[in-house]
Amino acid sequence: MKNPLILVTNDDGITAPGIRNLVNFMNEIGEVIVVAPNSPQSGKGHAITINQTLTFEEISLEGPQKDYSLSGTPVDCVKFALDKILTRKPDLVVSGINHGANSSINVIYSGTMSAAVEAGVEGLQAIGFSLLDFSWDADFSQAKEYIQNIVKKVLENPLPKGTVLNVNIPKLKKDEIKGIKVCRQAKAKWEENFDERINPHGKKYYWLTGYFNNMDSGDDADETALAAGYISIVPVKFDLTAHEHLHYLRGILE
Amino acid sequence: MKNPLILVTNDDGITAPGIRNLVNFMNEIGEVIVVAPNSPQSGKGHAITINQTLTFEEISLEGPQKDYSLSGTPVDCVKFALDKILTRKPDLVVSGINHGANSSINVIYSGTMSAAVEAGVEGLQAIGFSLLDFSWDADFSQAKEYIQNIVKKVLENPLPKGTVLNVNIPKLKKDEIKGIKVCRQAKAKWEENFDERINPHGKKYYWLTGYFNNMDSGDDADETALAAGYISIVPVKFDLTAHEHLHYLRGILE
Repeated sequence: MKNPLILVTNDDGITAPGIRNLVNFMNEIGEVIVVAPNSPQSGKGHAITINQTLTFEEISLEGPQKDYSLSGTPVDCVKFALDKILTRKPDLVVSGINHGANSSINVIYSGTMSAAVEAGVEGLQAIGFSLLDFSWDADFSQAKEYIQNIVKKVLENPLPKGTVLNVNIPKLKKDEIKGIKVCRQAKAKWEENFDERINPHGKKYYWLTGYFNNMDSGDDADETALAAGYISIVPVKFDLTAHEHLHYLRGILE
Repeated sequence: MKNPLILVTNDDGITAPGIRNLVNFMNEIGEVIVVAPNSPQSGKGHAITINQTLTFEEISLEGPQKDYSLSGTPVDCVKFALDKILTRKPDLVVSGINHGANSSINVIYSGTMSAAVEAGVEGLQAIGFSLLDFSWDADFSQAKEYIQNIVKKVLENPLPKGTVLNVNIPKLKKDEIKGIKVCRQAKAKWEENFDERINPHGKKYYWLTGYFNNMDSGDDADETALAAGYISIVPVKFDLTAHEHLHYLRGILE
């Protein structure tokens, strides 16, 4: 595809190193427009802003792309870009690069992935990218070639309708990455453990914390691929129907 | 099941008529504990609160149940209840009754349904209930018998693992409701149309608005059942993998 239009967003905020790297990688592939949150939006899932108003600014950052910062969630960014900023339908929407994993169950909490899913709902091609490194100075350059190749392949081979990609990249040097595996979402969950504290006025308050519990050692699960040094790609859909149980439940509930 | 423990939550806030009706219906079935947001959380999807702290209060409302109000999202409420409030695993988690539909694609934006999904991720039986009436004085009593029957059936016949129920109830009198249909999620989307305004300082701001576009007239779709006067029940899963496309995508991407 010649000079595709690529919309870039994320959930860590428009100035995060992860999105700036992704923008640079996409500038070498097509025309780039960035519409991303003006503040960190991690863990916002598929939230939309309906009880507050939104504002946006065009801001000037290094590179040939255009950058717009929005006072909303990642999903708001996709909706706003399509309605108010883009003058034609983008050929691809990419979200990330997230600072930290969005593998397995994290896909449902992730603002990064929810932006990609929203693009899918809008009928667009979309990919979310995440690096398994939470640090602000993570080395995103190791993943550059892999990310550019995945994007080029998707531009050449459209994704099945109703499907977007969840790409997670291990924290490894480029030549230590073993390759790419297309996977299913591992069965995993967070075991929550709220951290209780007392404020200066004597009132209890809580921070959400917890630990990650992977309950799945399947060869085809994304956590397994990542642990073995592969980039995992899970095709994600937004038809949440458990089609396989419709018949059984009709017998019980109708 | 004798005197089951039922956790109740919602996204409209702990004092909304929808949840107060649901609490009353559940008090006739088991022991009820309510952990619900202290403010409206509609459209919050699967958001969790990680960059702010949470507080909670036990509050006194009419009825034998215990009520706890939390300063977080619906998903936070489920996590907090399990970690800090409940002393044993609940037999069922019910969320709602939402003021307004959560059928078709609305399942992914809905805080009500995300609370039910989070309970499913935790390995619990869970049901989200929504009435197709946004008004604060909607008549929830018409649905009482249907809701109690669905709850009793689920307590007697556990849902398939990894599945929760999305129940939507048409705005009809009890004897006008035609029955229950177990359905798939209809293919539908919101066409966004941000409403642009100017604040007193001359700056533009936006409200997210739009219209609902149902693109699915299938007999087995939830929107079809609701339009025909049935209660729709969609089994919802949180394994978002598009298993049916793994083979094709391996050919392209690995």
